[in-house]
Amino acid sequence: MIVGIIGGGQLAQMLAMAGQPLGIRCLFLDPAPDACARTTGELLCGDYGDDRLLDELARRATVVTYEFENVPEAGLRRLASRVSVHPHPQALALARDRWHEKRLFADLHIPTPPFVAVDTRADLERALAITGWPAVLKTRTMGYDGKGQRVLRGPADVDGAFAALFGAPLILEGFVAFDREISVVAVRSATGDVRFYPLTENVHRNGVLVQSQARPGDPMTARAEDYVGRLLAHFAYVGVLAVEFFQKGDTLLANEMAPRVHNSGHWTMEGAETSQFENHLRAVLGLPLGATHALAPSGMVNFVGRLPEASAVLAVPGAHLHVYGKVARPGRKLGHATVRAPREPDVQDALARLRVLAEAGGTI
Amino acid sequence: MIVGIIGGGQLAQMLAMAGQPLGIRCLFLDPAPDACARTTGELLCGDYGDDRLLDELARRATVVTYEFENVPEAGLRRLASRVSVHPHPQALALARDRWHEKRLFADLHIPTPPFVAVDTRADLERALAITGWPAVLKTRTMGYDGKGQRVLRGPADVDGAFAALFGAPLILEGFVAFDREISVVAVRSATGDVRFYPLTENVHRNGVLVQSQARPGDPMTARAEDYVGRLLAHFAYVGVLAVEFFQKGDTLLANEMAPRVHNSGHWTMEGAETSQFENHLRAVLGLPLGATHALAPSGMVNFVGRLPEASAVLAVPGAHLHVYGKVARPGRKLGHATVRAPREPDVQDALARLRVLAEAGGTI
Repeated sequence: MIVGIIGGGQLAQMLAMAGQPLGIRCLFLDPAPDACARTTGELLCGDYGDDRLLDELARRATVVTYEFENVPEAGLRRLASRVSVHPHPQALALARDRWHEKRLFADLHIPTPPFVAVDTRADLERALAITGWPAVLKTRTMGYDGKGQRVLRGPADVDGAFAALFGAPLILEGFVAFDREISVVAVRSATGDVRFYPLTENVHRNGVLVQSQARPGDPMTARAEDYVGRLLAHFAYVGVLAVEFFQKGDTLLANEMAPRVHNSGHWTMEGAETSQFENHLRAVLGLPLGATHALAPSGMVNFVGRLPEASAVLAVPGAHLHVYGKVARPGRKLGHATVRAPREPDVQDALARLRVLAEAGGTI
Repeated sequence: MIVGIIGGGQLAQMLAMAGQPLGIRCLFLDPAPDACARTTGELLCGDYGDDRLLDELARRATVVTYEFENVPEAGLRRLASRVSVHPHPQALALARDRWHEKRLFADLHIPTPPFVAVDTRADLERALAITGWPAVLKTRTMGYDGKGQRVLRGPADVDGAFAALFGAPLILEGFVAFDREISVVAVRSATGDVRFYPLTENVHRNGVLVQSQARPGDPMTARAEDYVGRLLAHFAYVGVLAVEFFQKGDTLLANEMAPRVHNSGHWTMEGAETSQFENHLRAVLGLPLGATHALAPSGMVNFVGRLPEASAVLAVPGAHLHVYGKVARPGRKLGHATVRAPREPDVQDALARLRVLAEAGGTI
């Protein structure tokens, strides 16, 4: 059984590792010859729009999925005409444009921060009248890990931000002074079986996720699952879907969705009965979904820009190290560690271990 | 970091998979071009005694280890003169000869069934006078999974058994009408840190392990760990060591030791904080050992001769499937499944799931 994956980064790598015990092989398409997933499967090296490689992927794979949103639509359409593609390319097309994405949230009565499409300088002035200050100007597409966005705290920031981002279609969003950031990772099978992982509380720094904690039984769970369930049903979605929310008081505002496995779900590798990676594979291949409950108080820290010594991480009880084999660069995600609290669940203890790991990674 | 592994079967494959998240690559030496580990690392294909390949292994690997006992001693000596080899070849040499192995148990005051070396038909008669009936005639080397042994229930069995096994050095052992079979999987670091996994209760059929259950807190734990601790100390052992015992009343009789990861420790992949595979790699590479406690009531069933449908296994809550990618043959281990009981530990529930898996695999 071969699963084709558009993209060969760490998400593809972790999908492939989850597939190995099940006898599932992965075939990656990525333009980078040193794409880190290459150690866990076969790499087709070339452009995402390369018809010859897309056709090879379609011919050899049972099903094709992807590890990131920024895939050219023409290539996806070509693929989908030749092989099963999950999640549906429509979900991908929507998620890659912040404006369409927020329009869908609004259509499904999922609250969002105020948002306005911006194409011209005049649009931006009108949009600021709607959002008020501060606001965030973002490119509608190709943004990730805090790239392609500027915070406008007052009129003095407007010209610089517009000049920096102008040229791409833009969106202005009201700035949310949130109490916390949460995400929901869910999985849906082709037969409509839906499972939610425990709600996850996230910490970002410079737009990059640095830490997640699973929050089983969190009081916002029912509301968040209701919102994510609407999206799953809308697309008759197949696979893992992650949705990030800002929480302010008891309001959840949807920030963005990712039609794929998600960094805030990495704690599930050791912390949940079935990892998000295995469940994504199970879903796209039509296998029964696995249970999503947390095994113990669990969390994750990202190692960004530099990796700690392996021995420092492995000396922490309950810590599990994941290194991606990527060349170190500032701001680049190079690995992560999960931590699972010991047998007698003790949340404070789990948090203390998470702090040690974050210090090891320099991410707090 | 490259770990060389003598052998490219499923144990090597699972070691390699445990190494991937840690950035550890594995390099296998195996005579079979279709050795199943090849999908998880690089395979040097050739004889275990091939000096050129052994030298390549020594040159490229940080440390060399093995997945089975039946490795020629000359090759191991050659390797050990060029690269670190763990566990120590002395432990391997001992474990591959049942008579030397049992002599060591006796020297360390670890009880065993009665045993006598047998080279001639006359030796066999004298040996039977010591063991009494029934007894088991075994080859001293190269036996595994019940191969190379015959049960002697009475004088009528003697000629046939001797004729079948004669030619190899033999050992006669008293037959133990055991209450149960247990094993201890332990790991020791180069600095003398020793960790024991919970004692495991095993069921064999036709000499092949078909089912294991973790027994944390088992009343025989202290005695079994004492015995295994003597072996670890004797060898100043580095890596995972497994020892199988027969229990009769409150007596433990050592049956055999395996200087490697062991089938009865497969439940640790999902059932323990750190798997036996990861801990073996940590030990041989000088990394801190991971915790060995069970996460929940856990067990494992082997799929021997045929694999069940993946969907039948994955539909069992808490089941995790491992297929090795080997061609099916009668009596051949093709895969296994572990089961981990749900959040609220319920041993009866775990046992019920284990039964469903064993039925799926036709192994009960």
